[in-house]
Amino acid sequence: MRYAVLGTGIVGRTLAAKLDSLGHEVLIGTRDPADTLARTETTPTGVAPYALWQAEHTGVRLARFEEAAAHADFLVNATAGQVSIEALAAAGAAHLEGKVLLDVANPLDFSRGLPPGLDPVNDDSLGERIQRTFPALRVVKTLNTMNCQVMVDPGRVAGEHHVFLSGDDAEAKKSARELLYSFGWPEASVLDLGGIETARGAEMVLPLWLRLMGALGHTDFNFHIQGAGGPGAWGGH
Amino acid sequence: MRYAVLGTGIVGRTLAAKLDSLGHEVLIGTRDPADTLARTETTPTGVAPYALWQAEHTGVRLARFEEAAAHADFLVNATAGQVSIEALAAAGAAHLEGKVLLDVANPLDFSRGLPPGLDPVNDDSLGERIQRTFPALRVVKTLNTMNCQVMVDPGRVAGEHHVFLSGDDAEAKKSARELLYSFGWPEASVLDLGGIETARGAEMVLPLWLRLMGALGHTDFNFHIQGAGGPGAWGGH
Repeated sequence: MRYAVLGTGIVGRTLAAKLDSLGHEVLIGTRDPADTLARTETTPTGVAPYALWQAEHTGVRLARFEEAAAHADFLVNATAGQVSIEALAAAGAAHLEGKVLLDVANPLDFSRGLPPGLDPVNDDSLGERIQRTFPALRVVKTLNTMNCQVMVDPGRVAGEHHVFLSGDDAEAKKSARELLYSFGWPEASVLDLGGIETARGAEMVLPLWLRLMGALGHTDFNFHIQGAGGPGAWGGH
Repeated sequence: MRYAVLGTGIVGRTLAAKLDSLGHEVLIGTRDPADTLARTETTPTGVAPYALWQAEHTGVRLARFEEAAAHADFLVNATAGQVSIEALAAAGAAHLEGKVLLDVANPLDFSRGLPPGLDPVNDDSLGERIQRTFPALRVVKTLNTMNCQVMVDPGRVAGEHHVFLSGDDAEAKKSARELLYSFGWPEASVLDLGGIETARGAEMVLPLWLRLMGALGHTDFNFHIQGAGGPGAWGGH
């Protein structure tokens, strides 16, 4: 399969590396590849310049949003939530048509300081906003409720835990499930919340996630919905 | 101990019945006891009139907010979140001074239809608002992330799951912990998020809780933070 991962941050890199390791053809989309490769600074949160990562991941190719989307069968939105619509618009609606988009982003709003709040919230969500703006895209909100290392390696967190799905297209959710299984998520760990409207719930959990990170002092944790399934649903776990 | 449970809805009744069964002296606070007792209708969600419940719980006494608060050592806010400040104001700031308040309410906003959103959200929370309005009260936000039957009987949900604590007063949080233990919560199930500001996280999880209820078709579930503690932290569970 040909994947386009939009976003060159730590989430995009982690997902791209995983997809590459699974034998997929992966393009990372960015606004301006030359600009992305020219950056030399490490971010305040310790993320190394993209070029350093690129040198170690030669199987992944950097491209403009538009080229990445045109090339791919399957898209992943790993851009910062506040610029996701803009990034998808740059990819071009014609290149999104009929394709599945895994939306793993969160609409974190840093404009009022730290920790960030969310925007939109309550009566809208980033997942819905993307689906509404690009109606021919088949949006599945998933994986946004955990650290990116856990997304691609659920075994980092011992025991049973869940990944949520929200989306209006049943076939697209089936594709998303299959991708999650290939990342190591057991079948029973995938919890379908319903239509894309349920992304409101999955996104609004982020403020709790941020405070749990503060309280626990690490990011190797995840939500498990106890009572969601029968005991033993996770098999050998 | 003498408890005042503010709020005559299903949450207040369930908590009051549990406290009564544990041998505490319990008053339920309401604006106007005669009015509360005169209601005969069952609510749209199937909650029976208060008077019927009262007849079966003769150990619990109904009183005005002010009388209930004056009498009690320990308060529980089980009012609807949108009227909690008003209910506490009716209780009288003088009767709140130095007392611990367990705030189990959620600021659900039904003004834009169902499912409800939250107000406040992002840069404030009901827990903080109560603490700010009544600075001499020692507010602990807890138990608001689950159905009330699970609050008082955590064993309804098989396996490990968590109850969060948010509050600025360490002694008050210790008292809250002890009450939770008496409800059957194992020590390892109590997860201290930090100061009262962290109530923002615990409250913003409600939209996900509501969608989980929709997806699962029941309310006997709860959040477990996998990776929060070592394996076996729950002992025999």
